[in-house]
Amino acid sequence: MQRIAVMTGGGDAPGLNAALRAVALAAHGRGWECLGVRASFNGLLDNGGGGVVPLPPDAVQGIGHLGGTILGTTNRADPFRWPPPGGRGEIDRSDDVLAACARHGIEALVMIGGDGTLRIAAGLHRKGLPVVGVPKTIDGDVAGAGVTLGFASAVAFATEAIDRLHCSAQSHRRVMVVEVMGRYAGWIALHAGLAGGAHAILLPEIPFDLAAVTRLLAERDARNRPDDIVVVAEGARPVRGQLFVADPAVPGRSERLGGVGAHVARQLELLTGKESRAVVLGHLLRGGSPVAADRVAALRLGDAAVQALAEGRAGVMMTLNGDVPGAIPLEEVSTWRVPVDHPLLRTARSLGVCLGE
Amino acid sequence: MQRIAVMTGGGDAPGLNAALRAVALAAHGRGWECLGVRASFNGLLDNGGGGVVPLPPDAVQGIGHLGGTILGTTNRADPFRWPPPGGRGEIDRSDDVLAACARHGIEALVMIGGDGTLRIAAGLHRKGLPVVGVPKTIDGDVAGAGVTLGFASAVAFATEAIDRLHCSAQSHRRVMVVEVMGRYAGWIALHAGLAGGAHAILLPEIPFDLAAVTRLLAERDARNRPDDIVVVAEGARPVRGQLFVADPAVPGRSERLGGVGAHVARQLELLTGKESRAVVLGHLLRGGSPVAADRVAALRLGDAAVQALAEGRAGVMMTLNGDVPGAIPLEEVSTWRVPVDHPLLRTARSLGVCLGE
Amino acid sequence: MQRIAVMTGGGDAPGLNAALRAVALAAHGRGWECLGVRASFNGLLDNGGGGVVPLPPDAVQGIGHLGGTILGTTNRADPFRWPPPGGRGEIDRSDDVLAACARHGIEALVMIGGDGTLRIAAGLHRKGLPVVGVPKTIDGDVAGAGVTLGFASAVAFATEAIDRLHCSAQSHRRVMVVEVMGRYAGWIALHAGLAGGAHAILLPEIPFDLAAVTRLLAERDARNRPDDIVVVAEGARPVRGQLFVADPAVPGRSERLGGVGAHVARQLELLTGKESRAVVLGHLLRGGSPVAADRVAALRLGDAAVQALAEGRAGVMMTLNGDVPGAIPLEEVSTWRVPVDHPLLRTARSLGVCLGE
Amino acid sequence: MQRIAVMTGGGDAPGLNAALRAVALAAHGRGWECLGVRASFNGLLDNGGGGVVPLPPDAVQGIGHLGGTILGTTNRADPFRWPPPGGRGEIDRSDDVLAACARHGIEALVMIGGDGTLRIAAGLHRKGLPVVGVPKTIDGDVAGAGVTLGFASAVAFATEAIDRLHCSAQSHRRVMVVEVMGRYAGWIALHAGLAGGAHAILLPEIPFDLAAVTRLLAERDARNRPDDIVVVAEGARPVRGQLFVADPAVPGRSERLGGVGAHVARQLELLTGKESRAVVLGHLLRGGSPVAADRVAALRLGDAAVQALAEGRAGVMMTLNGDVPGAIPLEEVSTWRVPVDHPLLRTARSLGVCLGE
Repeated sequence: MQRIAVMTGGGDAPGLNAALRAVALAAHGRGWECLGVRASFNGLLDNGGGGVVPLPPDAVQGIGHLGGTILGTTNRADPFRWPPPGGRGEIDRSDDVLAACARHGIEALVMIGGDGTLRIAAGLHRKGLPVVGVPKTIDGDVAGAGVTLGFASAVAFATEAIDRLHCSAQSHRRVMVVEVMGRYAGWIALHAGLAGGAHAILLPEIPFDLAAVTRLLAERDARNRPDDIVVVAEGARPVRGQLFVADPAVPGRSERLGGVGAHVARQLELLTGKESRAVVLGHLLRGGSPVAADRVAALRLGDAAVQALAEGRAGVMMTLNGDVPGAIPLEEVSTWRVPVDHPLLRTARSLGVCLGE
Repeated sequence: MQRIAVMTGGGDAPGLNAALRAVALAAHGRGWECLGVRASFNGLLDNGGGGVVPLPPDAVQGIGHLGGTILGTTNRADPFRWPPPGGRGEIDRSDDVLAACARHGIEALVMIGGDGTLRIAAGLHRKGLPVVGVPKTIDGDVAGAGVTLGFASAVAFATEAIDRLHCSAQSHRRVMVVEVMGRYAGWIALHAGLAGGAHAILLPEIPFDLAAVTRLLAERDARNRPDDIVVVAEGARPVRGQLFVADPAVPGRSERLGGVGAHVARQLELLTGKESRAVVLGHLLRGGSPVAADRVAALRLGDAAVQALAEGRAGVMMTLNGDVPGAIPLEEVSTWRVPVDHPLLRTARSLGVCLGE
Repeated sequence: MQRIAVMTGGGDAPGLNAALRAVALAAHGRGWECLGVRASFNGLLDNGGGGVVPLPPDAVQGIGHLGGTILGTTNRADPFRWPPPGGRGEIDRSDDVLAACARHGIEALVMIGGDGTLRIAAGLHRKGLPVVGVPKTIDGDVAGAGVTLGFASAVAFATEAIDRLHCSAQSHRRVMVVEVMGRYAGWIALHAGLAGGAHAILLPEIPFDLAAVTRLLAERDARNRPDDIVVVAEGARPVRGQLFVADPAVPGRSERLGGVGAHVARQLELLTGKESRAVVLGHLLRGGSPVAADRVAALRLGDAAVQALAEGRAGVMMTLNGDVPGAIPLEEVSTWRVPVDHPLLRTARSLGVCLGE
Repeated sequence: MQRIAVMTGGGDAPGLNAALRAVALAAHGRGWECLGVRASFNGLLDNGGGGVVPLPPDAVQGIGHLGGTILGTTNRADPFRWPPPGGRGEIDRSDDVLAACARHGIEALVMIGGDGTLRIAAGLHRKGLPVVGVPKTIDGDVAGAGVTLGFASAVAFATEAIDRLHCSAQSHRRVMVVEVMGRYAGWIALHAGLAGGAHAILLPEIPFDLAAVTRLLAERDARNRPDDIVVVAEGARPVRGQLFVADPAVPGRSERLGGVGAHVARQLELLTGKESRAVVLGHLLRGGSPVAADRVAALRLGDAAVQALAEGRAGVMMTLNGDVPGAIPLEEVSTWRVPVDHPLLRTARSLGVCLGE
């Protein structure tokens, strides 16, 4: 091997730069050259994408603690489903990716991204390009990965935010509803909700019944605990047939106001008569300096990806379960939602947290 | 003096507990008893308000670093305009406040709050109750106060949030719009925007022209700086006659989507074609442990309030301009919006920050 | 089971309160009473130790985010080696522990602590008291535990501290030496050093050769990278026979100045001529609010300990390896130092970090 | 004016980069060129100092939140007392500074630094070079400055550190002694001590009597408050004639162990029998991202410095008292220690804080 390349795909997340640093340094240590592809596949396929840049050790010096990705990224760059020059639909440009790699002398590719990116990685590997994946997603929803870069940082920030909101909840005897990212998987909501001492946690995996939340609030009120924190994943949905209380502030409308956080806050206000406020953390969860755990994991996974290439073991996603490094075939990468029998759900119930059931 | 009371009014803010601690300890040090009124005037006027509680030194031990207020507070508790038992309108219950104070043996009152609370303080003082005010508002908009408790903490958190959002802006070449509190005064937006390196800052005091922001974004794009941070105060409004671009995603509607942050983000996306995202900090700005500056100011102002009472100087709001303590008559307390010729605006323009002009 | 007790032993660490909360709530949820033993075994054996206190749900409300332990703890409270009333030596008071438990109606004990505490737990279990252990140590050195409460928080703070020191190192072209806790195990130094981008990391497990560090510094200087960060575990020691440069500031003395951090800083200054400064993080690593990961782990381990008791599985230490909960017999608990072939050492070397070899 | 230069002198402090950014952007906005002098006067006088670099807007993009100084700095670079090529003593190289400025076309100089740097600024201005000063020192000890860059950040970090140490103090019923920077002025100790809820604060300006501290500790013990926090400035000294308790661990020695923090901790342990621990914050206080207040002040002061030059008002140090910008002649710059009648000392005493008196 003489030259490899690395890219970041999908939404930005804390830890990407540490992973880039590890890939570049580990490659350099083996005497390989390392290139960085700008803006995901745009750097290989799009003239405006920034192309590829060399990543010698000096280029990755002092970036491990920085959020975002120095290479840039985008949520929309699937070479198998590329937007054609001026029209609709999608075309397959995966052959162009292979040609671009050949042109740049790129013998193997390290792709850092979430399930979308890793699916593309599997596709390219199938076509003959040696690819190794590194799991990255703040949602934490890649099965078998153990660690996905950005998850620990997102949970840390969400927890800090919940800590802050306890103050208002207690001072004003209010319900504070915190909406966190997680369209399909509730891992952030579950971890941050538990860490932040939330009284109710609503996940995409468990359709919620607001009557259950209302019961909890009433019971807390009865114990003179009038401050309530409800954490809601953006993808949480009510149980089928849940009727909403008509909102006098929105005459003639029965549909939801804003996102699920605003909806839950307003409905709880109508159902309980208690002042409720919603806060949406959104993109705040993606930014900022990665927490130490994400940095160490990023360095380990990036280094392991290079080692896998050195050993001729491409076609895999590197994993880190607890302290144990490993790899699983890219073909077997799948999404990991919160299983209904996960021990953490048991712990939540055991601590008296309402899961909207 | 043998017995005083202290209360917190209006929205919660970091620094209230440090101020309570200072009032209680300073009173105790003079041999006075200090009571705490629960939930603003509810503690004096409403049976459910929690009444008054003694605040001996032990009750305020170790609370200086805590956000919120151990006494509780509420935004809606004006004894001069109190909701009558079961009906509409308002009644004046200020005499009941004086009676309640007499009943509890309260000889003087320290009121910690924003302009609403301080106006009530002036009214009660006029009626004969010795009152001293301590300025508290995260918006920083009390004229002459120098420091208002919570402002430094709110600016610190908003700045941290902006720091985080730079990551996404840079990685995705996006416009990130950050909406901060400030319905009438833009101090938080101005300070946090400058501290966070925002490229545009939109204030309630300066009606904004999105064409100016669009020009800045185009100019930055031309210099290959595609990451943009726009900070918007919740009370910022467009210049009269500003036409909005029709939003194809909202057929048949010309009105604004959501708050001003979401509106600005969507309009900039339509005007420039660049991906834009909005984040609303909202109540996150009120919570959390007060920063050191708010704590020190709270201790100074709380102690000074007790000293003013000891010296027979009631009817004033304590102030702290830089390192210089002082006081101004409660009758003269007024709101402080960003003056059009404030030196900080000059600095913003000098640094190339767009103010939407 | 009708009544259990919980205690914290050894040095304080972030996460203890979350674990106490989980034990108390999980016990309560099963209809058991939960007591808290104050100040480790002092609460059972010493009249001044504070005795035992009931821990109903209200007593553990809102404590999950607090550092320290509400029960108190001490480093010196081994009932098998208890200081006799007024003299020297040690006496075995383990029977008194069992008697005290019987007196209080304590049927089982959850002990949260490090290897010392867990060894005592094994001893008491052997004597017939049902005991379950929860691993706690900022050093992260309990074999098989996966998580030890406090480690993640200590690494997070050490990493933040290293981030700060980069500023001075770069601005002054200095060597900054950071000493972290870890008398026998270098896990904190290794994780925080990697996360913080340290250029050299010295561990108790690898005797260090300052010549290796000096070579690295010279090489970095040659590449115009004059800022250097060296992380040293407090228990790191030089290779046998390492000669020290005589210190002209300490005439006639060859011995070390202060701790190993100060020593390394001074020696590097003498060896390289570069300005060097040492910082000792010490007890800063133990305090503060636990990071989210420590809180979630504490809740899981505490809940699992109660579940183990409910299932009649005493005599074990609860574990959490990655996402996988488990348990190992208390008899098999052992210390976990950094193995010389640990993959993280490989990663460190692969990234060009000097390990003093 | 066509070309100015800016430099940073003395120890690094948070806020320097924001000030550099403001000077460069404000100069650019006026059509001037701005140069940066590397490593204080080394950049003008020493071939190895790095010389001067242009600072166009792009060079100062995105640096406002970074700690340290991108120009580098040093504590030892006084052109009036420069070390001669290979020998002892000092020579006056101020003429060389003027010559170097002339050579580079530098018409005026903005110098950002503490009292040492500002004294040099006055000297150079006296010799005909237009100089404007910007006050920077974490110690906060420049009279009339109002703000000195770095002070707010240092106090914020010290306060956070004290917050952390409360956990250990409470859990172990210990005395925690925290030593902060401040050789001659106790501002950091006073502000952080108050903000952190310290029970005793020892300043360089008030020689301390350990008997007073011991009395406080005994009194707190009697009220069952066994956790004690003592904040000590590094320059704090005992009252004349204070006798130390002989330390059995150091036979034959009466002198102090380590710095004043370690000394106070050990003496308190000997005097009270309570476990005591010392932590020295040292260089941790200088690093890290500046807090928002330091950033805003840096931008204001840097911009004001350029404006002063534009208005022909050189020879001054820019000031910011509360919200009020101003300037004082460089010749009148003096050191500001804690005055014995400062209102903050009164507040400290009023809150029951022991000042070692």
